[in-house]
Amino acid sequence: GAPIGPALKKKNIPQPSNPLKSFNWAKLSENKLEGTVWAEMDDSRVFKILDLTDIEKTFSAYQRQQDFFMVNNSKQKEAEDDALSSKKVKELSVIDGRRAQNCNILLSRLKLSNEEMKRAILTMDEQEDLPKDMLEQMLKFIPEKSDVDLLEEHKHELDRMAKADRFLYEMSRINHYQQRLQSLYFKKKFAERIAEIKPKVEALTRASKEMLQSRNLKQLLEVVLAFGNYMNKGQRGNAYGFKVSSLNKIADTKSSIDKNITLLHYLITILEKKYPKVMQFSEDLQNVPEAAKVNMTELEKEINNLRSGLKSVESELDFQKKRPQEVGDKFVSVVSQFVTLASFSFSDVEDSLNEAKELFEKAVKHFGEDSGKMQPDEFFGIFDQFLQSFTEARQENENMRRRKEEEERRARMEAQLKEQREKERKARKAKENGEDDGGEFDD
Amino acid sequence: GAPIGPALKKKNIPQPSNPLKSFNWAKLSENKLEGTVWAEMDDSRVFKILDLTDIEKTFSAYQRQQDFFMVNNSKQKEAEDDALSSKKVKELSVIDGRRAQNCNILLSRLKLSNEEMKRAILTMDEQEDLPKDMLEQMLKFIPEKSDVDLLEEHKHELDRMAKADRFLYEMSRINHYQQRLQSLYFKKKFAERIAEIKPKVEALTRASKEMLQSRNLKQLLEVVLAFGNYMNKGQRGNAYGFKVSSLNKIADTKSSIDKNITLLHYLITILEKKYPKVMQFSEDLQNVPEAAKVNMTELEKEINNLRSGLKSVESELDFQKKRPQEVGDKFVSVVSQFVTLASFSFSDVEDSLNEAKELFEKAVKHFGEDSGKMQPDEFFGIFDQFLQSFTEARQENENMRRRKEEEERRARMEAQLKEQREKERKARKAKENGEDDGGEFDD
Repeated sequence: GAPIGPALKKKNIPQPSNPLKSFNWAKLSENKLEGTVWAEMDDSRVFKILDLTDIEKTFSAYQRQQDFFMVNNSKQKEAEDDALSSKKVKELSVIDGRRAQNCNILLSRLKLSNEEMKRAILTMDEQEDLPKDMLEQMLKFIPEKSDVDLLEEHKHELDRMAKADRFLYEMSRINHYQQRLQSLYFKKKFAERIAEIKPKVEALTRASKEMLQSRNLKQLLEVVLAFGNYMNKGQRGNAYGFKVSSLNKIADTKSSIDKNITLLHYLITILEKKYPKVMQFSEDLQNVPEAAKVNMTELEKEINNLRSGLKSVESELDFQKKRPQEVGDKFVSVVSQFVTLASFSFSDVEDSLNEAKELFEKAVKHFGEDSGKMQPDEFFGIFDQFLQSFTEARQENENMRRRKEEEERRARMEAQLKEQREKERKARKAKENGEDDGGEFDD
Repeated sequence: GAPIGPALKKKNIPQPSNPLKSFNWAKLSENKLEGTVWAEMDDSRVFKILDLTDIEKTFSAYQRQQDFFMVNNSKQKEAEDDALSSKKVKELSVIDGRRAQNCNILLSRLKLSNEEMKRAILTMDEQEDLPKDMLEQMLKFIPEKSDVDLLEEHKHELDRMAKADRFLYEMSRINHYQQRLQSLYFKKKFAERIAEIKPKVEALTRASKEMLQSRNLKQLLEVVLAFGNYMNKGQRGNAYGFKVSSLNKIADTKSSIDKNITLLHYLITILEKKYPKVMQFSEDLQNVPEAAKVNMTELEKEINNLRSGLKSVESELDFQKKRPQEVGDKFVSVVSQFVTLASFSFSDVEDSLNEAKELFEKAVKHFGEDSGKMQPDEFFGIFDQFLQSFTEARQENENMRRRKEEEERRARMEAQLKEQREKERKARKAKENGEDDGGEFDD
């Protein structure tokens, strides 16, 4: 566009006789120059000083084909190079830096020719040549507009192009290469992504139902309510209900008789005696631990990603339907079928999630909590933690009981032993006194 | 307040004859009960089943004074306990759980009596008894309203109170205990906090000035601009300026002669030859590395925290000025003086920060970047990284040069050696041919 402010001097940049490697900078747009340090610069002064021929030689886009890992053995290598240089083909390499290097690594792993790659993409990989992780990598090496422009300029030198350059050039010539690749990747990952969501949604639904239906949990809460009201005075007492997070404070209150016994240990012994059925409440809440791991924000994000991914595939399908199909291009037939099936699957999961969310909200409200603030991981997390502490405390009670029994048994045995010895002592004494005629010795 | 919806049944909670430990739950407010599981509960049913006498015995707020760490040696301990129990004083302990435990740990570290603590707080710690970290801990044990209520009920049993209970009770009786503690902590930390901010602000100011003033940096950018324009074609070329982040892409372009040589290495050799003064640009930017560590969001947050902290202290001073002062209460005199000095210091830092921000914005704009988007850590971070890469590449050039010299020297010596041997060989041959009469052997 026409620059605003003082007119920009027309640049007169010297042109190298052969293409050079590119320097991957980000240009500053011309309307941002005014008043900056750039407005005071004039690179034409620099061109007079630079040895342009030397730059051209050092950063030529053409380079000798050489083994990347042999460059360092300088002395011996140079000699070999000198000997071979006449035979070696000079390679055209306009893509530079880490990008070309990583692209080369990818290509060496894929082990497919450009032609095979092209076919795999056009047929939506009907021969299963492209594993998911490779596709993911390939998506990072979509040729950019600037790459394509540069490569297009040199298409008459196809045979001299470096491997990465040639790959990017060939892929850039596939119609809608990027969209095809994305559709293929989406298709390959779809089932796996659905399979990851489903058990989470199911855990939410089931755990919410369990929370709403468990009579044992309700009875447990009533007992805890009674304990709190009996123990707490003033402002803290006289409660009609408590926040569910309070469950995890029960173990904070310690007995004044034995600091190793908490209110939770005590509560459990009471439940065992007076409310034995309540002890089964953990069996009522079997899906709670799984539901406690569900992050609703992430789950909804993934659903949204799936929805928009599916939409992109559909709109690419619309585009491909309208254009004449080349021989070997199976996009329309393969993707049409996929979209039909995937849409069913997706609606299914979406409906389940909506049902799960409704049930979850109902469960949260059922316990008097604010459904706007409580997320599943927090809500079920509270009960999950309580379930764990409950189980642990129950085990500790059991251990204490067993220890006590053992101690009592030992005490009983010691008493018996003592009694026995006493008996023996008395018997001995009676013997000594009564039959004082033998010549026996004590041991 | 009056409950909304169906009238709540009046609770008839049985009262324990002695105070009990509390269960630190969170009550649900009464207007949230409708339609929840709590509305269906009736803890009066539970009271009929529970053995309240047993609960009262097990969770009495009075407990025997016992060594916390001796509880586990059960058998022997029990015997001792039985022997001592008649002599032992029963302790009143209404504060429970982790809170009491942590409070006890704090008190054992502080090693001050409650009376000494009280004096330290009233005199704003003129004897320096309370280290900063202890104050920070004490701020976590501000008695809560519910603690105070409970403790107030038992103030006739002061002597029987457990250590933590007694401490919280005594502190709760100091007028505005929390505000005094906060003011004291703020006063103690103030100098340190200012001292942490100042060098950051100074680094920002200095680094911004350096960026604005360095002619060497400007010249460097002009040379880089010329390189980019010479090397890049089409859309990427013909630039009047570039984003500063491009500086860290220079090293991504590799020479086609030797892949170990990047455009950065090359640029440095050119600068050394043609623009030797520019090589000093890193000395122009001495404060950049420090400025790159400054997070403006955190810095402003800290300034805001200081401002609001100072305001709180001032409003507490206003409050204390209006009430009659007790003997030994030095709050007004000490804090008046502190507020005067601190306000000066704070305005000073605030002014410096505003100046630094203005300069920083100017510097960012000077390079054509968007000052709304670039934070100091990003902007200076770019130059800091470039400075480091520049130094490294310069060192690598130096190493390559030295290696090359060494190789040349070795090659020269080898050549000389070869020449020398050739000479000797020839001399020997001449000798053999000319004076073929001796009987000498070769070695």
